[in-house]
Amino acid sequence: MNNAEHDSIRAVQWRGDHLHLLDQRLLPDTEQWIECRDASAVTTAIRDLAVRGAPAIGITAAWGVVLAARQGASLDQALAMLRAARPTAVNLMWALDRMKAAIARGADAAALEREAQAIQDEDLAANRTMGALGAALLAPGSGVLTHCNTGSLATAGYGTALGVIRAGVAAGRVDHVYAGETRPWQQGARLTMYELVRDGIPAQLIADSAAAHLMKSGAVQWVIVGADRIAANGDTANKIGTYQLAISARHHGVKFMVVAPASTVDMATATGEDIHIEMRDPAELLATAGRRTVIDGANAWNPVFDVTPAELITAIVTERGVVERPNGAVMQAVFGH
Amino acid sequence: MNNAEHDSIRAVQWRGDHLHLLDQRLLPDTEQWIECRDASAVTTAIRDLAVRGAPAIGITAAWGVVLAARQGASLDQALAMLRAARPTAVNLMWALDRMKAAIARGADAAALEREAQAIQDEDLAANRTMGALGAALLAPGSGVLTHCNTGSLATAGYGTALGVIRAGVAAGRVDHVYAGETRPWQQGARLTMYELVRDGIPAQLIADSAAAHLMKSGAVQWVIVGADRIAANGDTANKIGTYQLAISARHHGVKFMVVAPASTVDMATATGEDIHIEMRDPAELLATAGRRTVIDGANAWNPVFDVTPAELITAIVTERGVVERPNGAVMQAVFGH
Repeated sequence: MNNAEHDSIRAVQWRGDHLHLLDQRLLPDTEQWIECRDASAVTTAIRDLAVRGAPAIGITAAWGVVLAARQGASLDQALAMLRAARPTAVNLMWALDRMKAAIARGADAAALEREAQAIQDEDLAANRTMGALGAALLAPGSGVLTHCNTGSLATAGYGTALGVIRAGVAAGRVDHVYAGETRPWQQGARLTMYELVRDGIPAQLIADSAAAHLMKSGAVQWVIVGADRIAANGDTANKIGTYQLAISARHHGVKFMVVAPASTVDMATATGEDIHIEMRDPAELLATAGRRTVIDGANAWNPVFDVTPAELITAIVTERGVVERPNGAVMQAVFGH
Repeated sequence: MNNAEHDSIRAVQWRGDHLHLLDQRLLPDTEQWIECRDASAVTTAIRDLAVRGAPAIGITAAWGVVLAARQGASLDQALAMLRAARPTAVNLMWALDRMKAAIARGADAAALEREAQAIQDEDLAANRTMGALGAALLAPGSGVLTHCNTGSLATAGYGTALGVIRAGVAAGRVDHVYAGETRPWQQGARLTMYELVRDGIPAQLIADSAAAHLMKSGAVQWVIVGADRIAANGDTANKIGTYQLAISARHHGVKFMVVAPASTVDMATATGEDIHIEMRDPAELLATAGRRTVIDGANAWNPVFDVTPAELITAIVTERGVVERPNGAVMQAVFGH
């Protein structure tokens, strides 16, 4: 937690006998912390979105298992309850599988605490590695544009795409950051701007639709985003709007970087065509900040992700290294084992 | 006002002795009408954005002059007051200049009423002409995407880009309409969806950042937008986000249509590089639907327009005809006199 590194936020904190969670639903208005003292409270926090971001959810769930073990509660029940909190979150399953394997090895509460801490520490270390690798790609004094929230709030800390930006700022390679507001949930407006302002990083919010005009102005040299799933050929699913940024970036000669842990790469998915895109409730677009803004009877089309084809991606950065000009062959060489 | 033509809305209505204005600030929640009985009330309605859209503002101001004449008030004072209501609106100046010329010719209140009605009728007629011309470019069963609000609410009625869509729906050439919400003011969400639902046009709202993903799906064949200013080479300034749509359209082989009255073409502006882009208050992005959504201390970059270069435009439609593949020579042939 070093402000000189523009990295002061830790949203998931183990306090020796309980878990301290920053309630992301209330940001940026209120910095309110939730104390979780049993697995049930952790489950509620995950289910009700007090914590969000795939790595952060997995880490939080691991601590839920530790709390159950400390209380002598049923670990099978705790695992099942936590697993059901966000049934489609891959990182949640991955972290709980790892805790389950430790239990199978006979781990006691203290050993489970070490395992959860390892999961959290490894995520932070991976983010720092990705930050260094990604920042090294940036020329000094670059302007960058990011989308959604991929920062400390979404991970153990530091972040993926936002970790590269933090590393770039600390190294003098990033002069200015632009954050797209990321409709409809506004993770960019609410969460990324919160992190950037809190950590003293020079930044401006933009409307998602202003990105091309910004690129034309010459103010950004890189778009840097996270990923929800990366296919075996490098096609990348991420928050809706990412694909549009990649098209505009290519049009303007702006480079495009995807930053995500290696666990995001799914070699069993051949291409982006095979990635199912979740459609969400039209109501998310029909109201804004809790207030209905669209006439009754109106409908909306609300995909939550899109797919950016590998040919629009300059580099994919994971903790295993940098894949430039991703394609099936180079992805297989790095991730095919 | 024929519902079979999907055209039921008239936001500026002269009622023989007063002006009836639909208060657009309250849409879509409330359909509240403002009765203006003198030029001062009209000035207030324009200044406070109860009426918006360049053609609609000009028409409203013309009726303000009529009200002053009917009351025997000073016409010079009325012209000056109305002119100052939105000092940068070109259509406002154009309509008031036309009323001033009628006054100079010795027009009485009745003659001024005929002049204001002519301004309004000519705008509606131009929109219907553009609608027919633009719709003829569409293949039967097309899906279209529009941006901002260019409909009855912004004009005497029918609309420019939305007029083409209305004509296309009536002719069976448009099957489905998508409207981008148009952050930060949400004219697409609040106003265009209001018009589409009211007039029974099959439509869905999308996040501005979902446009490229929509185009990739094959659901739209045309993007149809309005214009705030068109330069002598065809470069077009319009609401922020238009340029991004044009880039994505080109990437996907989707066609791109600009629809605006000939008065929008400014042959004195050589190219889009010469168009000044208004920057607006960052506060518009820092709050959403009246509620602060971004951390205190945050900044925003908030251009209100962008410029789409002519080479990304398939056709410019005005009441004078269709300019396909616009460039300086063909623009000069149609508008250079």
